Amino acid sequence: MTPQRLERIEHTLSLRQPDLTVLTDEVHKDRNLSAIVRSCDAFAVPVAHCVWLGEQYRVRRNHSAGSGNWVDIHTHPDIGTAIQTLQQQGFRVCAAHFSERARDYRDYDFTQPTALLLGSEKTGVSAQAAALADEHLVIPMHGMVQSFNVSVAAALLLSEAQRQRQQAGMFNQRRIADDDYQRLKLEWCQP
Amino acid sequence: MTPQRLERIEHTLSLRQPDLTVLTDEVHKDRNLSAIVRSCDAFAVPVAHCVWLGEQYRVRRNHSAGSGNWVDIHTHPDIGTAIQTLQQQGFRVCAAHFSERARDYRDYDFTQPTALLLGSEKTGVSAQAAALADEHLVIPMHGMVQSFNVSVAAALLLSEAQRQRQQAGMFNQRRIADDDYQRLKLEWCQP
Ligand SMILES: C[S@@+](CC[C@H](N)C(=O)[O-])C[C@H]1O[C@@H](n2cnc3c(N)ncnc32)[C@H](O)[C@@H]1O
Ligand SMILES: C[S@@+](CC[C@H](N)C(=O)[O-])C[C@H]1O[C@@H](n2cnc3c(N)ncnc32)[C@H](O)[C@@H]1O
Repeated sequence: MTPQRLERIEHTLSLRQPDLTVLTDEVHKDRNLSAIVRSCDAFAVPVAHCVWLGEQYRVRRNHSAGSGNWVDIHTHPDIGTAIQTLQQQGFRVCAAHFSERARDYRDYDFTQPTALLLGSEKTGVSAQAAALADEHLVIPMHGMVQSFNVSVAAALLLSEAQRQRQQAGMFNQRRIADDDYQRLKLEWCQP
Repeated sequence: MTPQRLERIEHTLSLRQPDLTVLTDEVHKDRNLSAIVRSCDAFAVPVAHCVWLGEQYRVRRNHSAGSGNWVDIHTHPDIGTAIQTLQQQGFRVCAAHFSERARDYRDYDFTQPTALLLGSEKTGVSAQAAALADEHLVIPMHGMVQSFNVSVAAALLLSEAQRQRQQAGMFNQRRIADDDYQRLKLEWCQP
């Protein structure tokens, strides 16, 4: 562990946004999930939430470029439980989902505690999850195809969140709790 | 062909930006390339340029959500030829690439004729391609991992291009040439 490496770790932890997260509903493809986790790391999201049924999931190192080590993965037994747990923790659950009540993601205030709910490649956000979500957000499409790849959609949303939070000065002081900071620093310093 | 469908096709073609494109250098993984082509469609990019050696490439329908039909794929024998061809057509070739001369992508003027050069997952933009490129752009990363998935990087760049071009009114009138408009309309109307 060089002093530069320690500094890098401390700096990264000092940017982490505990009140920004993603929740993937049955996004099964390893590559998609790994790309999402990798974007979480890059956009300072410390925890990603996942729901999947009856399948073992492991972030594949070669697709996530090792980001499984830097982002904690919390799994939930079903989407209803996951959404309610996050709401109880104070998150506004925003489904990335086309619907009557969807609005342009750039009009949403991402400085609020926000959990971004992403649907599966085939079926999208389920009706149940859409009903439970506090908000529906949509990224405007200007072509013939109806949706982005799910990891692309996640990154576009997180990028906008990052932009707004930077503007609001939310990267100027450490935002994760002391005990999380110490715990993660210890973990990340392990060889 | 319903009147709504025809209108949709005409509207989509009227948004297409002939002076915005991507060039992928040896991006082999079907899924990545297909996700990039799908984002091209959504961000109004009519043509994607690809270089790969000795391999047959086909956009996989299930990953690109059919976007292979809406985006023309031009292939080139090698990256040097590809870059020079685009430069001769008036494109500024911008490598998405970390280097001494790289600048923040949000500081680049995307209303210029621009070709975004993306490197492969393993080796990135080659030294030869980096040297030939007019400009190097970088998307700031705030985590421990050094790079985004390539299709994520492409989408973040195209999204910024779209934002700037919208602001500049470049979606307010049709920008592709009459003969391309007529040709694509015919093609897209085929059942
Ligand atoms: C490939 S899409 C799902 C498409 C699915 N066929 C459907 O009907 O919803 C996978 C997920 O990516 C997200 N997504 C993709 N494009 C989006 C967009 N333009 N706006 C918001 N979310 C999007 C959504 O969460 C969606 O559930
Ligand atoms: C996974 S990255 C390549 C990483 C490779 N190991 C390297 O050393 O360059 C694949 C491509 O995505 C693009 N890319 C990924 N993250 C980027 C970022 N933050 N800024 C600009 N381009 C990026 C670049 O074109 C890169 O060549």
